[in-house]
Amino acid sequence: MSVEGPAAPVPADNVLDWLDVEAEKRAQAGLVRRLRPRAAAATELDLAGNDYLGLARDKRVAGAAAAAALKWGAGSTGSRLVTGSTELHAELEQELARFCGTQAALVFSSGFTANLGAVTTLSGRESAIVTDASIHASLIEGCRLSRADIAAVAHNDPSAVAHALRTRRHKRALVVTDSVFSVDGDKADLTALNNACRETGAAMLVDDAHGLGVLGDGGKGAVHEAGLNAAPDVVTTVTLSKALGAQGGAVLGPRRVIRHLTETARSFIFDTALAPASAAAALTALRVLVEEPQRAERAREITATMAERFAAAGLPTSTPEAAVLAVRAPFPDDAVAWAARCAERGVRVGCFRPPSVPDGISRLRLTANAGLTDAEVEQAIQVVTETAPAAS
Amino acid sequence: MSVEGPAAPVPADNVLDWLDVEAEKRAQAGLVRRLRPRAAAATELDLAGNDYLGLARDKRVAGAAAAAALKWGAGSTGSRLVTGSTELHAELEQELARFCGTQAALVFSSGFTANLGAVTTLSGRESAIVTDASIHASLIEGCRLSRADIAAVAHNDPSAVAHALRTRRHKRALVVTDSVFSVDGDKADLTALNNACRETGAAMLVDDAHGLGVLGDGGKGAVHEAGLNAAPDVVTTVTLSKALGAQGGAVLGPRRVIRHLTETARSFIFDTALAPASAAAALTALRVLVEEPQRAERAREITATMAERFAAAGLPTSTPEAAVLAVRAPFPDDAVAWAARCAERGVRVGCFRPPSVPDGISRLRLTANAGLTDAEVEQAIQVVTETAPAAS
Repeated sequence: MSVEGPAAPVPADNVLDWLDVEAEKRAQAGLVRRLRPRAAAATELDLAGNDYLGLARDKRVAGAAAAAALKWGAGSTGSRLVTGSTELHAELEQELARFCGTQAALVFSSGFTANLGAVTTLSGRESAIVTDASIHASLIEGCRLSRADIAAVAHNDPSAVAHALRTRRHKRALVVTDSVFSVDGDKADLTALNNACRETGAAMLVDDAHGLGVLGDGGKGAVHEAGLNAAPDVVTTVTLSKALGAQGGAVLGPRRVIRHLTETARSFIFDTALAPASAAAALTALRVLVEEPQRAERAREITATMAERFAAAGLPTSTPEAAVLAVRAPFPDDAVAWAARCAERGVRVGCFRPPSVPDGISRLRLTANAGLTDAEVEQAIQVVTETAPAAS
Repeated sequence: MSVEGPAAPVPADNVLDWLDVEAEKRAQAGLVRRLRPRAAAATELDLAGNDYLGLARDKRVAGAAAAAALKWGAGSTGSRLVTGSTELHAELEQELARFCGTQAALVFSSGFTANLGAVTTLSGRESAIVTDASIHASLIEGCRLSRADIAAVAHNDPSAVAHALRTRRHKRALVVTDSVFSVDGDKADLTALNNACRETGAAMLVDDAHGLGVLGDGGKGAVHEAGLNAAPDVVTTVTLSKALGAQGGAVLGPRRVIRHLTETARSFIFDTALAPASAAAALTALRVLVEEPQRAERAREITATMAERFAAAGLPTSTPEAAVLAVRAPFPDDAVAWAARCAERGVRVGCFRPPSVPDGISRLRLTANAGLTDAEVEQAIQVVTETAPAAS
């Protein structure tokens, strides 16, 4: 560790000059990011958002949000344990647990804070965490906060997870994985991972952010699809802001896990509760999904069609298993330019560059929306294919 | 570090048995926490929430939330850099910066994630952080994530901060403090802290969650009150879920800081954007505050009255400087029973116990709401005073 001591008196104007140095480095590396606020009326086809089931603007869902704001107020007024828990939150928790087939659920203000809370409270200094190398950033932040002994093993390699579990130093262990990985849209082998856990007495935490609403019977998610929803050693996190079109996150699992999180998770206890409008929207979206389970299948079908066509056109395409797919670009600048060409032609796609990609490879990231028509899907396929960089 | 190795094959049912052991320990220590969902129609006087200006249920604010849900949809559909930034978010950022007198602002989905983002990106492995020992949990989590060299000094002791800054090993340093401390409602001496920063070339991060809307000219906050809003070495975080009655958080400061956060803060980049309804509610609340600046004064007046009367009744009361005050209880169980007696008599108060109190002392925590009438304040004072435990 360097021993430099404090700076000589620096003019206040210059104390943060290092931020400009960092900005210049990002510019040199093609990693500048700019916010591009969008208008309310969509003028582009959206293949970048996470509204997989087309429910964010569904009249029933948006109407429930509006009604809840008028009935309950704009904010929840406090943390969940003080004044922030309304009957809406409780109802949402009950229906989420029932839908996903777990004993209980706990709603957080975001999937990010749900992951922080779940990872930190289910591990700790006297435990080991074994993770897939490609888990979501919020899980990584949770691991860093946990003070556990962390082993990040190769992507999608259950045997590496099993080996790390067998050779760990701590009695208590937690396996942490995404169910559907957020960049390429590939699935984890939850059965194999759970077998490794059971062989060695570990628990398992699955982030089903991209599985809920898309995978499993009627969109019950990847953990339900794997038959692990009621397992006593499996905990699931989900988001309310993707397939359910709202905002927020939740942890689902055995009742004792939910009690433990309620009483000890710092990102739960010290955060303002989710706004009533968002809780109501998520609850209504869940009910729509129960009535219209075909939305899940439609999202998967669109993704599969796009992937097939991109691969046929020679684009280096991921093998998507839910509603997310990726096409690689040679360099960050190529990805940015490609996404810009798509936007010029009316198709909005995601552009993922370091540090948003675990392997450093830049990509276009495309998502399905069950509300797209066949003609819109066809348009999107043509635009992405025709604007591809020559080298890809 | 213990070297225990994996457990002998443990039945899956028993892998999480340790959670029950922990629950039993909390029960023994009087630290059980239970969610108590509330109904839409308030039946109690609320002296527990953070709706300091009475805006969460203001018709203009709730109406703006409802209208935004209908116009923009229930959710933002993605992260801020992909599809989650709407014109509403941009407008909110502009008006927040203008109101608070900073160059720019960046909206996060919660104050918790805003604090994580600000602390981690303004420090880092090659820097020192000096904090007040009583900072909010979300700042502490940010410090833990930052990998910086951390010195937590005595509460409200600028000379201790100055000493830590002078004797630090790293050139780069960040002072982290709340403006108004969340438990007792006392203020930090921002001027003295900034002087210490300037003497030694450090930057300063102030969490003004409890100051915005309550302190300073027309509720412009504690940083504005200290004349530091436009300082090139000061960054402020605020919440949209307290005085502004909505949900979310924001970072305010020099333009270069906002650019740096936009491009590098993991809790910004990897989190779904704030729902349009919450952004619209916060924006409208801000405009109401501009039109009705007397709300800030009313909140402070109610707090001062309560504190004076509690102290006169012999209760061990904090010296509040914004809209939060605390009255100490001998033990956690006393605080729980006291709060329950208040609730029975129609007054909802906060009950803060370890680990929500930095010093381990349990308290009732009361908050002002500018919407309370004098008669309601009087009722609250009588109930709290008459139900106090004999020993306190």
